[in-house]
Amino acid sequence: MNPVIVRKIARADTQVIAKLGEAGVATIHEAMNRSGLMRPYMRPLYPGAKVAGSAVTILSHPGDNLMIHAAIDVCQPGDVLVVALASDSTDGMFGELLAVSCQARGITGLVIDAGVRDSEVIAQMNFPVWSKAISAQGTVKATPGSVNIPVVCAGALVRPGDIIVGDGDGVVVVPREEAEAVASRAEQRMQREDAVRERLRKGELGMDIYGFRQKLEQMGVRYVGE
Amino acid sequence: MNPVIVRKIARADTQVIAKLGEAGVATIHEAMNRSGLMRPYMRPLYPGAKVAGSAVTILSHPGDNLMIHAAIDVCQPGDVLVVALASDSTDGMFGELLAVSCQARGITGLVIDAGVRDSEVIAQMNFPVWSKAISAQGTVKATPGSVNIPVVCAGALVRPGDIIVGDGDGVVVVPREEAEAVASRAEQRMQREDAVRERLRKGELGMDIYGFRQKLEQMGVRYVGE
Amino acid sequence: MNPVIVRKIARADTQVIAKLGEAGVATIHEAMNRSGLMRPYMRPLYPGAKVAGSAVTILSHPGDNLMIHAAIDVCQPGDVLVVALASDSTDGMFGELLAVSCQARGITGLVIDAGVRDSEVIAQMNFPVWSKAISAQGTVKATPGSVNIPVVCAGALVRPGDIIVGDGDGVVVVPREEAEAVASRAEQRMQREDAVRERLRKGELGMDIYGFRQKLEQMGVRYVGE
Amino acid sequence: MNPVIVRKIARADTQVIAKLGEAGVATIHEAMNRSGLMRPYMRPLYPGAKVAGSAVTILSHPGDNLMIHAAIDVCQPGDVLVVALASDSTDGMFGELLAVSCQARGITGLVIDAGVRDSEVIAQMNFPVWSKAISAQGTVKATPGSVNIPVVCAGALVRPGDIIVGDGDGVVVVPREEAEAVASRAEQRMQREDAVRERLRKGELGMDIYGFRQKLEQMGVRYVGE
Amino acid sequence: MNPVIVRKIARADTQVIAKLGEAGVATIHEAMNRSGLMRPYMRPLYPGAKVAGSAVTILSHPGDNLMIHAAIDVCQPGDVLVVALASDSTDGMFGELLAVSCQARGITGLVIDAGVRDSEVIAQMNFPVWSKAISAQGTVKATPGSVNIPVVCAGALVRPGDIIVGDGDGVVVVPREEAEAVASRAEQRMQREDAVRERLRKGELGMDIYGFRQKLEQMGVRYVGE
Amino acid sequence: MNPVIVRKIARADTQVIAKLGEAGVATIHEAMNRSGLMRPYMRPLYPGAKVAGSAVTILSHPGDNLMIHAAIDVCQPGDVLVVALASDSTDGMFGELLAVSCQARGITGLVIDAGVRDSEVIAQMNFPVWSKAISAQGTVKATPGSVNIPVVCAGALVRPGDIIVGDGDGVVVVPREEAEAVASRAEQRMQREDAVRERLRKGELGMDIYGFRQKLEQMGVRYVGE
Repeated sequence: MNPVIVRKIARADTQVIAKLGEAGVATIHEAMNRSGLMRPYMRPLYPGAKVAGSAVTILSHPGDNLMIHAAIDVCQPGDVLVVALASDSTDGMFGELLAVSCQARGITGLVIDAGVRDSEVIAQMNFPVWSKAISAQGTVKATPGSVNIPVVCAGALVRPGDIIVGDGDGVVVVPREEAEAVASRAEQRMQREDAVRERLRKGELGMDIYGFRQKLEQMGVRYVGE
Repeated sequence: MNPVIVRKIARADTQVIAKLGEAGVATIHEAMNRSGLMRPYMRPLYPGAKVAGSAVTILSHPGDNLMIHAAIDVCQPGDVLVVALASDSTDGMFGELLAVSCQARGITGLVIDAGVRDSEVIAQMNFPVWSKAISAQGTVKATPGSVNIPVVCAGALVRPGDIIVGDGDGVVVVPREEAEAVASRAEQRMQREDAVRERLRKGELGMDIYGFRQKLEQMGVRYVGE
Repeated sequence: MNPVIVRKIARADTQVIAKLGEAGVATIHEAMNRSGLMRPYMRPLYPGAKVAGSAVTILSHPGDNLMIHAAIDVCQPGDVLVVALASDSTDGMFGELLAVSCQARGITGLVIDAGVRDSEVIAQMNFPVWSKAISAQGTVKATPGSVNIPVVCAGALVRPGDIIVGDGDGVVVVPREEAEAVASRAEQRMQREDAVRERLRKGELGMDIYGFRQKLEQMGVRYVGE
Repeated sequence: MNPVIVRKIARADTQVIAKLGEAGVATIHEAMNRSGLMRPYMRPLYPGAKVAGSAVTILSHPGDNLMIHAAIDVCQPGDVLVVALASDSTDGMFGELLAVSCQARGITGLVIDAGVRDSEVIAQMNFPVWSKAISAQGTVKATPGSVNIPVVCAGALVRPGDIIVGDGDGVVVVPREEAEAVASRAEQRMQREDAVRERLRKGELGMDIYGFRQKLEQMGVRYVGE
Repeated sequence: MNPVIVRKIARADTQVIAKLGEAGVATIHEAMNRSGLMRPYMRPLYPGAKVAGSAVTILSHPGDNLMIHAAIDVCQPGDVLVVALASDSTDGMFGELLAVSCQARGITGLVIDAGVRDSEVIAQMNFPVWSKAISAQGTVKATPGSVNIPVVCAGALVRPGDIIVGDGDGVVVVPREEAEAVASRAEQRMQREDAVRERLRKGELGMDIYGFRQKLEQMGVRYVGE
Repeated sequence: MNPVIVRKIARADTQVIAKLGEAGVATIHEAMNRSGLMRPYMRPLYPGAKVAGSAVTILSHPGDNLMIHAAIDVCQPGDVLVVALASDSTDGMFGELLAVSCQARGITGLVIDAGVRDSEVIAQMNFPVWSKAISAQGTVKATPGSVNIPVVCAGALVRPGDIIVGDGDGVVVVPREEAEAVASRAEQRMQREDAVRERLRKGELGMDIYGFRQKLEQMGVRYVGE
C-alpha cells in the first residue's frame, strides 16, 4: 500500500490490440458477457476520438498530477495512460504540455477519472482523451502516488497491461489474459450482426428474428386493440 | 397495471405535426403556456437532430430492451419511440441494429429516458435520438413491460399519439387534442417575434418595447449612479 | 440588499482585456495562482466560442429574466453579461431575441449560471455563451433583482467591471485591479511554456525538466521491477 | 393550459385510504405491479413520518409558493398537498406558517418536489413532509399556477383525488379508481409475506421456498468449488 | 493572490451575534431580503446542531487540511471555521482531533464545503458541523492556502468576521456591517409572524390574510367547479 | 466471465476481524495508507449501524435481486453481503424478508451499491446496512449474476473474503492478506492519537505538535496583520 512505481509490465499482442480497436467498445463489452465497461460519465474530448492500447495505470491524490509525469517515464509506444484518483475530483490534471510529451513518446491516449484542460489544443493535436470533465483547474505536484498497480477507474478495475478500448460509446477494459479470446468472440459477434442487420434493413422485425413473440406471451404480456 | 401492448392508437394530422416541427421546441413550449417540456438532461445525440412525430410509448424495466422490439412491431411510418423506465437507468438500451430496424419501418426518431450505444453509427445514419446518456452498457430481454400506455418520460407525461417535437433545445410533448390549437398559436408567436426581432436588431431595447421600465419602478428597483 | 441597478461601472483597459483573451482561461487561472475559475459545469454553447470583456453582473430570481433586459440597457460595447441566480436553476432565461439585442448593442458574450434556449440559432449567430444547461424552459418577468452588484456565479465571485475570459476550458474571472499584472504574468508564463513545449516535443521528460525524480525519492516513492 | 383552480374533486373512501396507509409504500407499490412510486430523492423530513390521504395537486413556478396558499383554501380534512414544479428547484417553498395553516385545516401531509424550511419546527409539530431538499431559500408570490390538475411529481403522475401514501421508504401514488383493488391485493400480499417470513426466520432459504435453484441452473449459472 | 494568513480580523458585537442565533437561518435570510444563504447541500452533522459566530475563513486545496490547523491558531473563542475549497471535494478534511482542538480553543462550530470524518464522535462531543459530505477519506498536509481572505463557500461569499448562523435549515452569512440592522429586522419579522401564526392556527387562510384572492384574479387564474 | 457461484472462500481470522471493527473506518483507512474506502454516497441506514465481517460478494443486473438469494445460501455466520451492480441503480433490491433470512443465517450486515426498502423495519431489527439509496422500487428475479467473484462496489475493489468494516463514516475494505498487519497498524495509530488528543484537549495546537509553522514558512505562506 506504500507508493510504488512498477517499471515493467506485461502487454498483450499488438495485433490482438488492433483487432479489439476495430471491434469497438459496445461489441467488446457484449463479447465479454457485458462486463468491463467504465461508467458512462467518461466521455471523449472530441468527436471521432478512438484508441486501443495497453494500460499504464496511475493512482493519484485529487488535484495533483505529479504521478502522470512519473508514468510517462515508464511507458512504451502504444500505451494508454489510465488515471484513477483516491477520491472524486474534476480538476484539470492533464493539459497541452503533457499531451505533447505523450505524443513525443508514442503514448496513444489518455483515460482520466478527473478533468483535462487545454481542451481545444488537445483536440487539434488529435490526442484522444476520455475524461469526467473539462476543467482549467490547476493542480499541484506535492503528493506521492503509484504507477502500474491495479486501480479502479470510473467503476472499472484496470490492471497494468490490460487493454483499453475507447470510442464514442465510452471506454471498456479487457483483461490481458482474455484479450485474444475476446477479440475472437467480438469478431464472431460482428459477423452475426451483419446478417441480422441485413434482415432488419429489409423490414424483418427483431420480434420475429429473435422469437420474442412467444416470450412475451409466456410472460403474460397481453395485446389489446384489434 | 398488468403489462399490455396496445396495437392501435389515434394520431394527429400529419400537416399539423409538420407545422409543430417547423415551430421548434422553445416556441411550442411557450405556445403551450410554458408546459410539456422534458427535463433538460434529455440531449440530442448529434448536432442538428430534429424530429416531429406521433408518440409510441414504451414502459420498460431498467436494463431491458425487450419492449422496444415489441413497440417497433406496432409502429407506423412517422412515429417516434418514447421510452420511459420504471426507475432511473443510463444503460444503452438502443443501438445500431434497432436504429436500422426503425428506419426500415419509417420510424422517425427516438426519445429515451436512458442511454444509447453505437452512438457514432446512429449519428451517421442521421437517425435522431434524444437520450439521458450515451452508454455501451448492454441490456437483457428478460422482463415484461407495456407499449402505448401513458408514461412519464424525463418529467413529462406522454400519452400514445401525443406529438413529440425534438431539436437542439430538447424535447416537448403536445397533447394530441391540442395539437392544432398549439400549432396555430405557435405560428402567431413566431410572427410577433419577427417584428420584435427587427426592432431589437436596430438597437431598440426590450426595456422599452415591453414597458419594463415602469415595472421595475413599481417593484421598487432603484437606479444608482447615473 | 434591496434591488438596485448600478448604471456606471469602472472597466479595465481594452488592450489589457484583449491580452487576457489571447492568453486563454487555463493560462490566466495559473497566472492568478490558480484562482478565479468558475466551476467546470459552465460549458460553451458551441465549439470555438471565445470571449474577453468587462462583466456587467445580474442577480436574478430563478425562472425570471426581467433583470437581463434591465442589464442590457446599462451595457457598453465590449461588455459581457454575467447572470447569477439566488438559487439553482436550469431554466432557459436567455434566447435568440436577447442575443439579437446583445449583438445590436455590442455586448460580446454571456455567462449564465442557468440555462439558455434557441441554442442552435445563437450558435449560428456566433454569440458566445457559457451556461449550466440548454433548456427551452420559459421564464417570467415578475420579480425584481439587481444589476452591477458583486455576485457569486458558478462558485466564483464576480464584481462589476471584472474581466471575464471564456473559451473551451470554461470561464475565469480577473479582478479589475489585477488585470494588468495578470496579463503580464500570463505572457511570461506562455513564453516559459513555449520553451518547455519544445523540449518535450523532442522527447525530454517532465520528470527531468522539472526535477521530479528527486522529489519522488524524497517522498519515499519506490521503483520496482527491472 | 391556462392557470386554473379546481374547487371540487372526487376522493376515495376513507376506510380504503386507511387500509392503504397500513400497508405502507413498499407493499402498495408491489401490489400495483411495481408502479406508482415517486423517485427515491423524495425523503421524509423526520424519522417516523407517515401519511395516507387524498391528493390536492399544485403546479407552481419554481421559487414561488402563491399556489400553495390557493390550494389550502380548497382542501378538506384528510387531504395531502402534492406540489409539482414547472422545472427543478430546491427552494424552501413551505415553512412553519403554512404547516400551522395546514394543521388548522385538517390537511394531513405534504409531498413537495422542491424544498421546505423551518424543518425543525415542522418536525416538532409532527406534520409529515416528503421533499427533495431542506432549504431556507425564500420564495416570492408573483406567478400564477394551477390547483387540482394532473401533475408529474418526482417522476410519478398524480391526479387530484389519487391516494398518496408516504413512509420511510418514500411516496407512492394510487389511482383513485384502483384504490380498493390495490388495498385488497396489498392485504393478501401481507398475509403471504407473513407465512414466508416465518419460514425464513426458522432458517429456510428463499432459494428453496421460491424454487430459484432450478432457475439458476436453467440460466446457466454454474457452481464452483466442492 | 499569494497564500496569506491574516491574524487579526474585525468581529461583530457578541450580543448582536447572539440575537442572530436566536432568529435562526430562515428568518435571517428573509430579513436580508432573501440573500446570504449557502446552497442546501450543506447539512448539519447531527439533529439539533446550532451555531452563531464570527467567520474565520480558510481557502484550501482539495484533500489537504494543513490550513485548518493554521486557522485554529488565529481564532478567538466564539469563532466559527468556514472552509472553502479551490475545487469540489468531499474528502474528510476534519475529524475528531481537530474538533477536540477547536473546543479547547473555544471555537464554536465548523462550516466546510467538503467532508468530515469521525462523524459519530463529533456528534457526541456536540461540536456543530455543517458539511457537504461525511467521508473518512484521509487528507494530506502538503499544499499552501490562505486564512481570513474573502472566500466563496457553498455558493455564498464569506468575508472574515462575517456572522455565520447555522441550524437545521442550513447556513446563512450576515455581512458584519449589516449585522445589527439584520438582527433588528429579524426581530420585527418574528413579531409579525407571531401574529400571523395565531390567526392561521384559528383557521384563517393566508389567502385572506395576505389578500391573495385579488392577486390571483388579476393574474387571470380561473376557478372551476361550482 | 460467465455467471458463476463460488461456494467456498477463505476468510480472515475472527479475532483480527473484531479488532478491525473496533478500530473503525477512518482509522483503518489511514492505517492502509488512505486506501480501500468506498465512495461517500454509501451511508448507513440508521445511526449507530456498525459491522465488521468477511465479504461474500454479489454481482447483479440492476433491478434484479435473484443473486442475493443465491448468495445467502453460501454464507457463513459472520459474513457481510456486498452487492455490486453492472450499472448504476437505486432500486430497492433488499427488504425485510431478506433481512430476516440474513439474521436467521448469522449474516451480520449488508453493503449494497443500490437501494434498500422496508427501511424502518430493518432499522428496528438492528440489521446494519450501507446503501446508496432508500427506495421501495421493486425488483425482478430474471437475470443471472455471480457470487464470490471480485467486484467493484462504490468505487472500491472487493474480493470474496476481504474484510468489510462499516460505521457512521462509511465503509472500508481490507484485503484479507493484509488484515492482520492493518489491524496492528490501526492499533498503534489509535495509541498515538490518544496522546495527541490529550495535548490538544489541554490547548496545545496542531501547528506546534506537528511542526506546521516551519512548513508554512517554507511554502511561502505569509502572515499579515500585527
